[in-house]
Amino acid sequence: MTDAPRSIDLAVIPGDGIGPEVTAEAVKVLRAVLGSAVELALTEYPLGAEHWLATGETLPEATLGRLRGHDAILFGAVGAAPGDTRIPSGLIERELLLRLRFSLDHFVNLRPSRLYPGVPGPLADPGVIDFVVVREGTEGPYTGNGGTLRGGTPHEVATEVSLNTAHGVERVVRDAFRRAAARRKKLTLVHKHNVLVYAGHLWKRTVEAVAAEFPEVTHDYLHVDAAMIFLVTDPSRFDVIVTDNLFGDIVTDLAAAVTGGIGLAASANLNMDRTAPSMFEPVHGSAPDIAGRQLADPTAAILSAALLLQHLGLGDHAARIERAVEEDIAGRSGARSTSAVGDAIAAAVS
Amino acid sequence: MTDAPRSIDLAVIPGDGIGPEVTAEAVKVLRAVLGSAVELALTEYPLGAEHWLATGETLPEATLGRLRGHDAILFGAVGAAPGDTRIPSGLIERELLLRLRFSLDHFVNLRPSRLYPGVPGPLADPGVIDFVVVREGTEGPYTGNGGTLRGGTPHEVATEVSLNTAHGVERVVRDAFRRAAARRKKLTLVHKHNVLVYAGHLWKRTVEAVAAEFPEVTHDYLHVDAAMIFLVTDPSRFDVIVTDNLFGDIVTDLAAAVTGGIGLAASANLNMDRTAPSMFEPVHGSAPDIAGRQLADPTAAILSAALLLQHLGLGDHAARIERAVEEDIAGRSGARSTSAVGDAIAAAVS
Ligand SMILES: CC(C)[C@H](C(=O)O)[C@@H](O)C(=O)O
Ligand SMILES: CC(C)[C@H](C(=O)O)[C@@H](O)C(=O)O
Repeated sequence: MTDAPRSIDLAVIPGDGIGPEVTAEAVKVLRAVLGSAVELALTEYPLGAEHWLATGETLPEATLGRLRGHDAILFGAVGAAPGDTRIPSGLIERELLLRLRFSLDHFVNLRPSRLYPGVPGPLADPGVIDFVVVREGTEGPYTGNGGTLRGGTPHEVATEVSLNTAHGVERVVRDAFRRAAARRKKLTLVHKHNVLVYAGHLWKRTVEAVAAEFPEVTHDYLHVDAAMIFLVTDPSRFDVIVTDNLFGDIVTDLAAAVTGGIGLAASANLNMDRTAPSMFEPVHGSAPDIAGRQLADPTAAILSAALLLQHLGLGDHAARIERAVEEDIAGRSGARSTSAVGDAIAAAVS
Repeated sequence: MTDAPRSIDLAVIPGDGIGPEVTAEAVKVLRAVLGSAVELALTEYPLGAEHWLATGETLPEATLGRLRGHDAILFGAVGAAPGDTRIPSGLIERELLLRLRFSLDHFVNLRPSRLYPGVPGPLADPGVIDFVVVREGTEGPYTGNGGTLRGGTPHEVATEVSLNTAHGVERVVRDAFRRAAARRKKLTLVHKHNVLVYAGHLWKRTVEAVAAEFPEVTHDYLHVDAAMIFLVTDPSRFDVIVTDNLFGDIVTDLAAAVTGGIGLAASANLNMDRTAPSMFEPVHGSAPDIAGRQLADPTAAILSAALLLQHLGLGDHAARIERAVEEDIAGRSGARSTSAVGDAIAAAVS
């Protein structure tokens, strides 16, 4: 356990598109809930696609060094508009977002999925949806390993290498079991071990080994394709899902969709060893099409701020935000501006 | 174009679990629709988990050689019961099913997704769903490349290598554009090129290059995670999806779920160069839990037989099966046995 802090030294990376708007609301709610009990110091870092266009920098080594000194990082969203050809596709995502996750050893990418009462979703009969996905965040198919041979010729060969280590898999699996033990005590491994034999068997063996430490937690296994089916036909069956970096990306966007959309989906990139700051970000992207117009829903950013407080040992404050969000959602009818949503939730937690 | 054949020399691999039951109905419907106009010769191949238990064989070289001599292969389902520890997990899937797809160069894994009128599905407001997924079938993350270093130790490293070639990507992309040109003229590439840069860019560049040959077809791109969201919130946006072997596996199970389940999802493993027989199989597995009890829905197998006729140049016969299935589905109320469904559809196409 972490002692509740008296002050938080927070780095804020608002980013691009709707990032600054939703981050402002998350900060507003943080200030409101912390009041004078916990001091909140903010340092803004201008990083993202706009910053790259202006400076050619994605994440300089010195900036990364300064980020390491903070207690936590609040991240908005980054990425250029889809049609913007000035920015090489995926560059900012890889050299900023993924670089942060990998450099700061965010091995638990935690993504809770809850269908809040009153939220319209695409499923006719969703039942109760309340699970968390523990997505591995520092290896798997996301390591950037691979290459191109004879690029641009009819003989091109392109490879992608998924790297999986006992160290990397075991720590995230143990984290997932711990979370399951504190919840409804059920863990589901999602992979594709009938085809991806090497990585799949490492995951499967690890789950079986770590399960022995958690006799109260039951565990099962689903191929990723079967998991897709259950996520839309029986999402209540899930409590904790543990999976690799790529499957986790896929599963969590579907989970966000069935729980009412990525406007509500929060996430935490956690370094559970606390050797570097963790980072909290909405699952959604920078949505350049609606940026700057106060149209974005800041709820995902606000819920990500709650995950931040939880991680820093301020579980009561986190719970207050979650309750306020829940009540706010239940009372939603017409459209409100981004800041109106933030104002309402901030008022409720003050 | 292929001339309509006067006879079909068909290999049948009923397989395990519900495989034999659903295959019997598909054969029944084939016989009924072909009548005396086209001669149907059948050769059954006992392959699958049961066969492996009895003989230790998965797919002997000589059997593969004989299979090559047929006009087409009708495949039921293979796989042991989940709890059956006598069979190494995934062995039959890899050494029989994937070996057939790879050896017979089934580079187009075609999976139509249609929501038939009257079919209950999980979406509250599905709209019209009618798209096809063209899944690459002979490379990508399915090649079995990869390995394990220091297996079973705390220093284990497991890799999976996705192999992608210009040859392999181009032929499947061109096939997908052809199908789009014959449909609603819209193609969507699904990949994750912001992270899987090498393979992703090969796919993206290839789509852009081949698009020039099909000026009447519009094309767009979705990251696989975004595709998940659209598949449940706006599936009508899709006409033809083209994607790699693993993303295709994931996308098609979700597509099957939103169109009423894998009891209806048909597939074709096509060698479009016709250098070896193509293979037709329901998307579902062997479902050992309900096997032998006439509980399985044979519709997916029957629709796969329609894809078979289509591929062999018997499009009118294929269309008759599809119409009969559509009418049968529209009239469904209570449960019927596997053979009762087959009887009804066979009667309708005779
Ligand atoms: C932007 C992208 C690199 C990122 C990912 O794939 O992890 C995003 O989709 C997410 O889920 O956070
Ligand atoms: C059984 C398995 C190897 C197979 C696949 O992953 O291709 C199945 O899921 C399918 O979709 O046909």
